[in-house]
Order: sequence, then structure tokens, then C-alpha cells
Amino acid sequence: MRPSGRKLDEMRPISIETGVTKHAEGSCLIKVGDTHVLCTATIEEKAPSFLKGSGLGWVTAEYGMLPRATNTRNRREAAAGKQSGRTQEIQRLIGRALRAGVDRVALGERQIVVDCDVIQADGGTRCAAITGGWVALRLAVNKLLKTGAVTSDPIVDHVAAVSCGIYAGQPILDLDYAEDSEAGTDGNFVLTGAKRLIEVQMSAEGATFSRDEMGQLLDLAEAGIAQLVEAQKAAI
Amino acid sequence: MRPSGRKLDEMRPISIETGVTKHAEGSCLIKVGDTHVLCTATIEEKAPSFLKGSGLGWVTAEYGMLPRATNTRNRREAAAGKQSGRTQEIQRLIGRALRAGVDRVALGERQIVVDCDVIQADGGTRCAAITGGWVALRLAVNKLLKTGAVTSDPIVDHVAAVSCGIYAGQPILDLDYAEDSEAGTDGNFVLTGAKRLIEVQMSAEGATFSRDEMGQLLDLAEAGIAQLVEAQKAAI
Amino acid sequence: MRPSGRKLDEMRPISIETGVTKHAEGSCLIKVGDTHVLCTATIEEKAPSFLKGSGLGWVTAEYGMLPRATNTRNRREAAAGKQSGRTQEIQRLIGRALRAGVDRVALGERQIVVDCDVIQADGGTRCAAITGGWVALRLAVNKLLKTGAVTSDPIVDHVAAVSCGIYAGQPILDLDYAEDSEAGTDGNFVLTGAKRLIEVQMSAEGATFSRDEMGQLLDLAEAGIAQLVEAQKAAI
Amino acid sequence: MRPSGRKLDEMRPISIETGVTKHAEGSCLIKVGDTHVLCTATIEEKAPSFLKGSGLGWVTAEYGMLPRATNTRNRREAAAGKQSGRTQEIQRLIGRALRAGVDRVALGERQIVVDCDVIQADGGTRCAAITGGWVALRLAVNKLLKTGAVTSDPIVDHVAAVSCGIYAGQPILDLDYAEDSEAGTDGNFVLTGAKRLIEVQMSAEGATFSRDEMGQLLDLAEAGIAQLVEAQKAAI
Amino acid sequence: MRPSGRKLDEMRPISIETGVTKHAEGSCLIKVGDTHVLCTATIEEKAPSFLKGSGLGWVTAEYGMLPRATNTRNRREAAAGKQSGRTQEIQRLIGRALRAGVDRVALGERQIVVDCDVIQADGGTRCAAITGGWVALRLAVNKLLKTGAVTSDPIVDHVAAVSCGIYAGQPILDLDYAEDSEAGTDGNFVLTGAKRLIEVQMSAEGATFSRDEMGQLLDLAEAGIAQLVEAQKAAI
Amino acid sequence: MRPSGRKLDEMRPISIETGVTKHAEGSCLIKVGDTHVLCTATIEEKAPSFLKGSGLGWVTAEYGMLPRATNTRNRREAAAGKQSGRTQEIQRLIGRALRAGVDRVALGERQIVVDCDVIQADGGTRCAAITGGWVALRLAVNKLLKTGAVTSDPIVDHVAAVSCGIYAGQPILDLDYAEDSEAGTDGNFVLTGAKRLIEVQMSAEGATFSRDEMGQLLDLAEAGIAQLVEAQKAAI
Repeated sequence: MRPSGRKLDEMRPISIETGVTKHAEGSCLIKVGDTHVLCTATIEEKAPSFLKGSGLGWVTAEYGMLPRATNTRNRREAAAGKQSGRTQEIQRLIGRALRAGVDRVALGERQIVVDCDVIQADGGTRCAAITGGWVALRLAVNKLLKTGAVTSDPIVDHVAAVSCGIYAGQPILDLDYAEDSEAGTDGNFVLTGAKRLIEVQMSAEGATFSRDEMGQLLDLAEAGIAQLVEAQKAAI
Repeated sequence: MRPSGRKLDEMRPISIETGVTKHAEGSCLIKVGDTHVLCTATIEEKAPSFLKGSGLGWVTAEYGMLPRATNTRNRREAAAGKQSGRTQEIQRLIGRALRAGVDRVALGERQIVVDCDVIQADGGTRCAAITGGWVALRLAVNKLLKTGAVTSDPIVDHVAAVSCGIYAGQPILDLDYAEDSEAGTDGNFVLTGAKRLIEVQMSAEGATFSRDEMGQLLDLAEAGIAQLVEAQKAAI
Repeated sequence: MRPSGRKLDEMRPISIETGVTKHAEGSCLIKVGDTHVLCTATIEEKAPSFLKGSGLGWVTAEYGMLPRATNTRNRREAAAGKQSGRTQEIQRLIGRALRAGVDRVALGERQIVVDCDVIQADGGTRCAAITGGWVALRLAVNKLLKTGAVTSDPIVDHVAAVSCGIYAGQPILDLDYAEDSEAGTDGNFVLTGAKRLIEVQMSAEGATFSRDEMGQLLDLAEAGIAQLVEAQKAAI
Repeated sequence: MRPSGRKLDEMRPISIETGVTKHAEGSCLIKVGDTHVLCTATIEEKAPSFLKGSGLGWVTAEYGMLPRATNTRNRREAAAGKQSGRTQEIQRLIGRALRAGVDRVALGERQIVVDCDVIQADGGTRCAAITGGWVALRLAVNKLLKTGAVTSDPIVDHVAAVSCGIYAGQPILDLDYAEDSEAGTDGNFVLTGAKRLIEVQMSAEGATFSRDEMGQLLDLAEAGIAQLVEAQKAAI
Repeated sequence: MRPSGRKLDEMRPISIETGVTKHAEGSCLIKVGDTHVLCTATIEEKAPSFLKGSGLGWVTAEYGMLPRATNTRNRREAAAGKQSGRTQEIQRLIGRALRAGVDRVALGERQIVVDCDVIQADGGTRCAAITGGWVALRLAVNKLLKTGAVTSDPIVDHVAAVSCGIYAGQPILDLDYAEDSEAGTDGNFVLTGAKRLIEVQMSAEGATFSRDEMGQLLDLAEAGIAQLVEAQKAAI
Repeated sequence: MRPSGRKLDEMRPISIETGVTKHAEGSCLIKVGDTHVLCTATIEEKAPSFLKGSGLGWVTAEYGMLPRATNTRNRREAAAGKQSGRTQEIQRLIGRALRAGVDRVALGERQIVVDCDVIQADGGTRCAAITGGWVALRLAVNKLLKTGAVTSDPIVDHVAAVSCGIYAGQPILDLDYAEDSEAGTDGNFVLTGAKRLIEVQMSAEGATFSRDEMGQLLDLAEAGIAQLVEAQKAAI
């Protein structure tokens, strides 16, 4: 019944390759089916000015999509002269999600910038960016621990994200583009490794939904997150 | 225990005054406690170009905040030369929320633009904007029905929104600014008059949350929405 | 003969309500007929950098118009990404006008920002903004005097503004939108309480004018300013 | 008493050289003392879209200043990414002033763009731009008359501009930069060849002024305009 | 003597992998040593407006660099709100270079957009972009030939590029970043498969150069281009 | 055979008038045929921040073109809100070229900004800008030497530029606009007074070229540069 032939609760294949660029302190290429996102983490010894003297660290994220990551070419945002509202919304989400898994006192007054660039898109790019971004962040923090710049691990738990939605009346896990563009309701769920909730963003443009349906989607999300966390563990 | 002295499940006083500007097809000034938002609805007989020939209508929203709506003055976005990521995120939410309550076939190929401008802010401005924006939209659609431009009511149900959060370990309803800036988890809930869900946006920057807590916040939200819908009914 | 039925030298009804927002140091909502402008004054203890160390204060203004303040919706300047030439011209005028009534030595090295946002427009918005802006400024300065931050009153005199023009061959006072869009010549006059001139801006797009006509308009302006100053006095 | 040694009512030397660029339909380099402005007029057979089908023509102006036209280098507006409020205010003034001397029916549905670029500045650039811009416009219109594109002369009268101000308590004509930066009151006066008024813009930043003083400045302006119109006549 | 240990006339290892994204009509990932560029070609059936009705096609290029493609993170151009002068210069070069190898009549009135995004940078990114961009273009044109949209091959010859420079007084081929940042003179050479010249860009910031040296660099370039063209042939 | 009637190796008449603006530390108006560029040099005692504490000076350039410098009016870049890619490419070239003739240690930690504004264009504006820009730079440096701010002459040699191209199959010197728009290959050559090469930029959009042709163009360039350097010497 799903265009992809997957079962309702079936994730797409997940692959996370680390160390894909020689310059970044942490990096990975995450593939969730045909969605491919390159994630890099950059350590900056200077925290943002609003934290000056606070002793607290910061984690922030930027998101981009190559113009031909999608089926038809999108205008390059650098050429358009601004990031779209969608881009800004996504990168704010990634930053919030990753910060929720970090002890900012332990990180110390520095900043880690996580760049998530979509090489190929097939739905769920923001979720793949969070899941892959966490791996890049983890690897960068490992460098800080190794050099002794940081002595207590600031990473509190895994952070991973998955989309769920109601497609043709059925709750499904990990929507691809074909499903995403038809789903009446869809949502993004960010959870910790311990299945604590970080972000729930459910939205009905086509059809409103009930509390029961929300519960079913959350069940699916928990199952999906478990697989994503396993993939993260395998990668690092 | 709340800074405002309110009970955990107590909304702030709600007031909705309609017809506050002589030019707009629909307008209201909504006050939820000290949060005051001026909402106007403008009917444009031309739909956005991506709908040309589709017979479908569109509802969109824009959001702004007067520079001194807040405790310290914010830079005017027109002077800064762009809308912030926060502004864009909010106006996209308002537009999605209002569209979820509209039958776009019945509306016909035209657009209604809902402008929500915050005159005074004390937390929950996006929720007040949705609740008041629906009233402005309702009034504008009434004009279309009156003139016969539209023959079948495109408004499917009420749409209203409220924030809930976990403050000092307790779930509370309708956060004001003092509560919002301290809450570990908070969320915005958009519901229909029939209590169907349109948007759920929960976010933990300070502390992750459990499914149980999410359920408690949703209970509070349903109670708050009922009062907001009553206020909408009284206003129109 | 005037569309509004007013006599040639008749002002529209003036109302000035103070204390309309809880955050600003000074605020008012001024209504001149159907033109409604919300004015707030913000005290910033830091003067602009070009005054650093001079001991002199500064008063500046920003002007905006809600998108549906007018008969047809105007594009939001924040969304357009810049303030129009008209907006910049108006806010420069408001700032110059208010500074002309202030002793900048007595104010001390700080800045007061006056925001004038047009809620509803029916002609003469810049004049209403100056007249109402002065009230907001006066109230903010009163706070400085009360706390002792300023010891000698930096407000030298009232500042108020009114438009006059030649409509259907006749000099008229306080043009509304219908008159303004037909007038061959119109001008804005900013005067002090003592009827000293601060700004005279007369402009002929449709028809040139004579020195005699300029004198007649100035007579009207003096009469109008007297009423505006009375309204300012009543408000504070 | 004037820094320049001029008498109170003495203009700087005026020179207008026409035909200074080979491409423009009309052009001149106007020098008023050390203020040098290059003015070109471009005929565009297409009127602005708001005039489509009206049969009316349009005259508009743009103003710029070379970065080192002034004593210290100003940032290039093209590099800064926007025209300043001052620039926009000036070019709007030039456009309005020139249109006041044109019969837009006779011009027919086309546009003339007058570019005024300040090569060297020493006060009064906007006035020189109007006076020189009129010459460029006159020459471009002559081409339209010569080719028969226009059969009745759309130029109604000369348009010229001069600044006057109160300097060290005395009304003076044609302020240079040294005078302009010290004057308590100054103004720009745009008149026709027949001494009808087009624009009066008087402004007090340092000191308010009286109606009597305004009259004295207007007397000076009329005398200065007469000389400028003579120079225009000599040039064409 | 070269930091990399390469001989003076030794290229870095070249690898070109095609078909790396599922959406683009043509794509490749080109690696020249540690410089990795993802190139995609998009066919747009609509030519730019300046070619409307001409029957001629167009090839254009855009260039970008991921923020952490370099040793220290560069600000994202989309966030900065504009493409740098360097970026624009490079993408104009890529477009000109590729057009020089295309018969625009045979291509027909359509456009091919070649996007070159640097995943990892180690000097010579613009040359890799041209060489890889040509492969993506070739593959996209193959699709047009296969479907019969184009009947005569518009690709006239291979186009490839390499940098050469004078490093520590010696002419060297294919500079990496360490060499590039020290070279007194360097240049980019774009040639066809038949060794005709398309672009020569030589520049001395540190030390001027002689005609003899220019000849030596050109010799090196011809040798390098031969290897790049071989790699192109092997890839397609 | 050339539209201008010139011989293949014939430059247009060159004129360089110095001291054309009273404010700049160095200035000239260079005319190469109908291409007229106003060049000014501004001394800034503060070097760019990336040179802070290095003891090294900097020379940079900005380029602009008046809207009606060309046959049809170009949109003003300040109004468009950004400099075009072409403008940025040209001003980067001018800056690099001039720096190549300067001893930055001798200049000391300060900056000279050379502004090149095209008053009238007929091909070769960037070359005229370099040649004239060098004169303005030379004059500004003379002031530094005269005041003793600089004790050893930082100007190492003349810098001048000329374009050459292949037009109707023949190599020609100093292309005007009519030639430039038809040439299959054209290039810009920047040389020192001692005929050392600074920049070679050759580009084939219409037709590729051979090494032999490149040599012929370089011969022409050397001859042209000699005349330009003579004109520079005569001017200063």
C-alpha cells in the first residue's frame, strides 16, 4: 500500500559513514533511503557574544540543500540572497534538538557549529540532519575529550529524529517524498536514546487528527528512533 | 506558585473586539491578558500564481511585532531589512493553522491575507494571533457570503490556539512571558472547535519530557481552547 | 464643498490617549479623525556612537504603517526587505521635528527613540505622528525628571504638525485622504507651541502656487497647531 | 562675514556645459561654485506600468554621489547594498520638481529618466541637480520635438532651485558646505521661470524661525532663481 | 621540493564518478587529490529571456562551497545574504568555459544549468569544477540525444581546466592549497580536447612574471589537460 | 577594416588630466577615445583589519559606471541593491593590478582606496580604470612622500592595461565597443613599465584560439602599454 512497498512500520535502510571530510572536527554522510545529508561539526573556541563570561557552551546548526538535490532544480539560496523561511525553521529545529542532548556547562564556553547539507533529497531531510548531525557532534566532542580541552563528557544522550504521518488513513513510519506530499497529517519526532521527548511537531494541512492517532504515530516514532540510535552506535 | 498567581489550569482574561479598523474586510483586537494582537483580514480576488486555474482558494498570514511591544525595544524588521527566522516560522504556522479550518474549494480561487501585528507582548503572541486571526477571517468570509461572491460557507470549524508548558515541574496552561522564559518544556496547540488537532509543537530546550507529561499538557490545552472558542463565538 | 463636509479651516476631531502600552517609557494613541497612530518613546541610556563623549543627547524616530492601515493592503516593508523612500523621508522628518523642541545638553548623553506606527490611515499620518510622538516623548522625559536622571527639563516647547493644501482652488486645513489625493498643492507645517516654525514642506505636483497662497496656508496651519497643542496639554 | 567672502545675496559662479556625454538624449555638467553635477536625460518609450493606457508621460530622477565627491570618502551605495534615506529623499524631490514643469499629456505615454550624479560636492547638490536636470530634460525633449515624436512642447516653464538659510543670524543665498553645516535654518526653494513656487522645504535643526525670516529667505531665493534661469537660457 | 612531494609536472590523482545523484540529468563527483566537487547538470526547456525566439541554447553555471569544505569554516553565503565576488567570478568563468565547447544552435532554445558544489577543498576548485562540470553536461546532453530532443550533438569538444604557477621560482602543475597560497604567480588554463585555448587567467599578486615563464606554464597546462581529458573519456 | 578606421595596432587617442576634483588626495580623468573614467585615490590612515599589526599597507579599488555611460541606460547598482558580478570582477582586478606595482612594506600600515567611475563607456573601461587609477595612486603617494608620512617610495613601477582581441580573424589593439562586441577572442593585459606581466586574462566565448594568436596579442599589448606609460609620465 505504501508507494515504496514498505510495511507501515518499516524504516528505509540507514547508513552512516563517518570521517567523510578531512577538514571538519567531526563529519558523517547519513543516508536514510535516498535522502543523503552531509553533516560536519566545527569547533569554535569562541562562544556567541550573548554567552560571554557565562562559562556555558553553545551548539548551533545550519541547513542547506544543493540546488539539484530535488527532482526539479531549486534556486540556490545564496543567489536568491536569503535563506527561505523553511530553511530557517529547519536549522533552528536542528540546533534546539542537538542542544537538548548537551550539558552546556561541561562543554565550556565554546561553540560547535553543525552544518547539514542535503546532497540528495527524498523526504525526511530534517530528521536525517538531526540524526547525522548528532554523530558529527559526537565525533567533534570526542576530539575535545581526547585533547583534554573538555574533561567531563558534555554529551548527555543520543539525539535522533524520524518523521511519521497518516497516509491513506494509515499511520506510517519514515515518510519518503512520495508519501510526504500526500499525507494528510505528518510530524517530526525528536527523541533521546532513553526515549525522552525533545520535540514533537505535528501538523495537519490536509486533514485534522485525533489524540489517538497522535499516540499511534508516537509509537511508530519510538520504534524508528531505536533503529536510528543503533545505527548511530554502530557508526561511532 | 505561578508568578501571575493564576491556578495551573487558569487562562488569562480573554477579550476580542471586532471591527477595529475601517478599511479591512475583517478585523479584531484580541487581548489575552497583557498580550494584545491586532488582526486584519484582506480579501484579494487574485489567488497566488501557483493556484492559477485550480479553482482553489488560499489563506496566508503575516506576523509582525511593534518595536516596543516588548519590555526592551526590538529592532524594527523593516529597518533591519529582513524578517527574522522566528517571525517567518510564526507566520507560516498561522497560515497553516487557519487553512486547516477552511474548505478551499468553497472559498474559490481568491486569497485572504491575515495580518497579525502584536501591539503589546506578554507571551503567547502566536497563539493569540491564530485565535484572533480566525475571527478576522470569519468576518471577511461573512462579507463574501453576504455579497454572494461565495455561496457555500468555506469556514469548516473554529480554529484556536493556546500554549502549555511545564513550569517548576508542573504542567500549566497559557504561559505569560515570565513563565515562558523559565519553562523547561513548552508547546503550542492548535485545535478546532470540535477539538480535533491541527498543530502540536512541543519543544524541550531546558529539559526533555515524557509521553505522560505530553498528555497532561494536551488535557490543559483542550480546556483552554474551549474557552477561546467561546470568546470567538461571543465576538462574532 | 469639502468631501468631509468640514469648513475650510476646520480640523478633524483630535483625541490623544496616553499610557496605552505597559512597556514603553512614554506612549499614546493619537486619533485625528480616522487617522490613528500609536506612538511610543523608548529611553536608551546609550547615545549613538557619533555623540560619544559629547555630553549631548539624541532623539530619533521610526515610522511604520500596518499593511492594512489603508484602503488597499500595502506590502509589509519587513517582508519587502526594505523601508520605502517615503517611509525614510517621513521618519527623518519626525526625528528632526522632535529634536527641534529639545535641549540636547539638558537631555544628557542618552537617546530617546520614538516609534510611530500607523494603525489606520486617512491622510496626515506624518503630522499625527509628530504631534503624538511629542506626547510620548514628553511622558518619557517626565520619567527621567522623576527619577532624577535628568535635572533640568530638556523639553523646550510643544511641537505639533498639521497639513494644509489648496483643494478645488481653496486653502483648507487638515486634509483627509480624499482631499489629499486631489489637492494641487499641499504642505506640512511643524510649529512650536509659541508658533515658531520648525519645518515647512510645501509641494506642488499638480499646480504651482504663489507666495500669497503660501501665506494663507500658514495662517490656517497656525490655527490648527493651536488646537493640537491644546489637545497635547489636555493629554499630559 | 560669509566664509566664502560673498555678499549675503550673492550666488556662486554658475556654469552649465551641455552635450557632455555622447550617449544620453540630453546632458549637461552644471557647476555652482565647487558643486559639480553631471545630469543626463534618457528617453524610454515605455512609461511606468501604473500609467499603462493612460496616455500620460512620466519624468523621474535618480541621484548619486561619487564616493570621493566629498571631503572624506563616503561608502559607495552600490557596495553598501542600498540607497540611503537622504539619497531617496533627494531623488524623489528632483523628480517631483521636474514633473511640475511638464505637461504630461503633451509628453505622451513615455518616460524620461534624469540621472544626477555629483562629481564634486560643496553644498547645494540637490539644487544644482534640479537646475541642471531641467537642462538635460529640455535637451531630450527637444529631440522628441525634432523627430516629431512629440508635436506640442511638454515643457511648460523653466524649473530651478536654490538653497537659502540663516547663518550667524543673517539670511544668506546659496549656501556652500561650510555655511550649510553651521546654518541654524536652511531651506531649498524650487521655482518656475515665472517665479511660481513648486517646492518649499525649510527646516530648523538648530534654531526655529519666524514667518518674517521665511519671507526674507524667499526674497533671496527669487533673486537667485532669476540668475539660474538666465544660465539655463544661455546654455540651451 | 613541493610540499606534496610531487614532481614539478605531476598532477594529483584524478577520479570521476558519474551518476552520483538520482535526480539530475547528468552528474559526477570529481576528485583531484583532496579537492572534491559535486557537479550536476539540469536541463531546462526554457532558455533565458534574452534568447527568446533566437533558436539558440544557453549553458550557465553556479558555484558554491560547503561551509566546512575548507580548513576553517567559511560563512555560508546563503546566510550572509549574497554570493561573494570570488564566487561570482568563478561561476562566470565556468559558464563561459563550458559554453565555448558547445554549439548553441545544435543545442536548441533550452538551457542547461551546471551546479558545481565543493564538498572538500584543497586548491584548484574552479578547475575541477570546469572539468567535472563538462562531464555532467556531456551526460545531460546524451539524454537529449537519446530522447531525440536534440538530433545533432551540440558538444563540440572536451573542455578541461588546470592551474599552474610559479612556486619557489619553479613552474609547477596543478597547485594544491599549500602551494597556491605561496605561489608568486598562478594561473588557470582552460583548453579543449584539441588543445585549443579557451581561457587563460594569469595573475601576479606576489611577483610579476615574464613571457618565457608564461610559456613554461602553458606547456605544463597542456600536459595536465591531456590527463584530465583522458579521465573524462574513461568516465563517460 | 576596423569600424573605427584605425590600423590593427593603433591605439585610440589617450588623454590624462590630473587634479580634477578638489577633495581627493590624487585624481585624474583618463580618456581613451570615447571611454572616460574618473579616478580618485583616497588615503586612509587605517589599514583593513586583517593587516592589523602587520606593518603592511593595502591598495584596493572600487569600480562603478554611471547609468547612462552606455548607449542604453543601465540600472543604477545602488538602486538594484547590489553590485553585479561583472562589477565585482572588475574591481577585484583593478585592486590586484595596482597592488602588484606597490611595495606594501614601504607604504606602511595604511590603505589607499582607488575609485574608478566610468563617465562615458566605449569599450576597455577596466583597462582605462587601471591606467588612470595608477595615476591617481601615484599622486596620492606623492602627498605621503611630501609630508614625510612615507619616506621610501612605495611605487615600484608603472602599471597600465590594454585590451587586445581577434576581430574578423585579425589581432587588433585597444578594442572599442563595436569591436569588443564582435570579437571572437579578447583579453586584457596588465603590464609594468618594464613590460613585466601582472595579469593576462584571455577569453574565448565565440571562438577558441591558439598559442600563436596569444603571442600576437601579447606583442600588440606591449606596444600599447608603452604608449599608455608615456601618457602616464606626461601627466604627472
